[in-house]
Amino acid sequence: MTLLVAITGWEVAPWVERFRRLLPDRRVVALGEPYEPDEILYAAAWKHPPGTFAGLPNLRAIFSLGAGVDHLVGDPALPDVPVVRVVDEDLTNRMSEYVVLHCLAHLRQARLYDGLQRERRWWDDRHQPAARDVRVGVMGLGVLGLDAARKLQVMGFDVAGWSRSPKSVEGLPTFAGETGLDAFLARTDILVCLLPLTPDTRGILRESLLTRLARDGRLGGPVLVNAGRGGLQVEADILRCLDAGVLKAATLDVFETEPLPAASPLWGHPAVTVTPHNAAMSAPDAVGAQVADGIFTMESGMPLRHRVDPARGY
Amino acid sequence: MTLLVAITGWEVAPWVERFRRLLPDRRVVALGEPYEPDEILYAAAWKHPPGTFAGLPNLRAIFSLGAGVDHLVGDPALPDVPVVRVVDEDLTNRMSEYVVLHCLAHLRQARLYDGLQRERRWWDDRHQPAARDVRVGVMGLGVLGLDAARKLQVMGFDVAGWSRSPKSVEGLPTFAGETGLDAFLARTDILVCLLPLTPDTRGILRESLLTRLARDGRLGGPVLVNAGRGGLQVEADILRCLDAGVLKAATLDVFETEPLPAASPLWGHPAVTVTPHNAAMSAPDAVGAQVADGIFTMESGMPLRHRVDPARGY
Repeated sequence: MTLLVAITGWEVAPWVERFRRLLPDRRVVALGEPYEPDEILYAAAWKHPPGTFAGLPNLRAIFSLGAGVDHLVGDPALPDVPVVRVVDEDLTNRMSEYVVLHCLAHLRQARLYDGLQRERRWWDDRHQPAARDVRVGVMGLGVLGLDAARKLQVMGFDVAGWSRSPKSVEGLPTFAGETGLDAFLARTDILVCLLPLTPDTRGILRESLLTRLARDGRLGGPVLVNAGRGGLQVEADILRCLDAGVLKAATLDVFETEPLPAASPLWGHPAVTVTPHNAAMSAPDAVGAQVADGIFTMESGMPLRHRVDPARGY
Repeated sequence: MTLLVAITGWEVAPWVERFRRLLPDRRVVALGEPYEPDEILYAAAWKHPPGTFAGLPNLRAIFSLGAGVDHLVGDPALPDVPVVRVVDEDLTNRMSEYVVLHCLAHLRQARLYDGLQRERRWWDDRHQPAARDVRVGVMGLGVLGLDAARKLQVMGFDVAGWSRSPKSVEGLPTFAGETGLDAFLARTDILVCLLPLTPDTRGILRESLLTRLARDGRLGGPVLVNAGRGGLQVEADILRCLDAGVLKAATLDVFETEPLPAASPLWGHPAVTVTPHNAAMSAPDAVGAQVADGIFTMESGMPLRHRVDPARGY
């Protein structure tokens, strides 16, 4: 009846403590602590070393501790057990905080005004667009994308969504698939990417996509906000598009390599906002409870919610 | 049938052009152009020179072009005619953009992360509070305050409101008057001030109020956001509170003297965000139409909306 906690890149102790409080009658072991392969019934994982879950004969389910599951479905030695995605209201709200903050920061030119403050310059541009003048396009209409889209609409932005397969959402214009992509991009001033990382979406934020964004918007050029996964973006292309004026600005929370190497030109680019993959951080309190719920659900014989479809990869 | 446009501090031409388009059968004169006192039936004003409207025998109404009317009711030579406030959806949305942007920026520590980016430092603090952990208090529950409060709630903040006289708002905890102020301030981590400037509210954001803000919040100290009027704040007190740790940070769009003098220590204070009174700028397109509506309303004998109560001053 043991839960294996396999985390890299995050502080492990708060998670282990949280699981021990939530599951007082189970054993909770962290990677690196001794355990017998056959005692592990469940695993809670974030960027586990590939192969970690091979050779666990009694493993019943793996719970991802963050919004993405690419770290799991990308493991060639992943056993054939249910993989459960976290769908957590707290995580969703945090992602929307990030997306709305950065869309508003671009709308209201926060970095320009920060620079003017440093120069002690009082400059009131009376021609700033309002949110309703700016078209935001949200790529990815899962729980995160839909919540962000709805909140951007409340703030007044002109929002549309794009997803791989057609999706009808009340009050939100949507586009789908390769055939809908051109029209979606052509009406997008701020592109918000919240796609899952799959073989289909890897590198989707490349020059050939970015050049199709709207050229007639009120922001003086299109803006990219990627809070999905670093693997979705081609950083050399983003830099080239910024320097060529194809993109006006980019806010990036995720990167091809994380932590972002100190030598990356993204850090120092005047049109790039870098945040350290903290758009929506999994909090042990909320997410731990959801994992415990999932374990109880399985043991009571009820169907597991938020199972990943391995064929789609999300 | 002439409209007098009396504006200082803003560019006048876009307003005059807009009024000429909206009112093609009237004369529109700007301050400084010649006119006969008895031809002026209406005035559209923003920070007019005091006395401008004295001695206009046929003046029927004065329309304020911005959200505040303190520039009008503070003119001792103001004639006894209706004063009309602008209540414009565009202006309201812009103010809420500003308020939500800056509350989120404090929540998500935007300036801290900007500084870390400049140092090329990757630091993911896993203990950041969520919006629901942060209590925002909105002072002033007019059209602007209520819209901001509602949008802050949508973003997840724990919002309450305060107004001079009791006000019941569905779904929003409210406090009123001097008797409610202590409890309101004691539950406020981010104080958003959208009060009108009146003799009662002048200097209300002083040390004796700021010291009553919550000391037990998740932001590490209370934060002030003033997007109302500069006359509401005592800047020396704000600086003293920041330096004493009574306030953690302040975002100020308005100042005792505008433009903010280059010598003001607010410009260079690391915990202060200065914006040049651009939180919600009146756009000639939207606001001009509302003034024209008001003129047509008066001439058709219907009651004017959004009249100012001179006794209250708003």
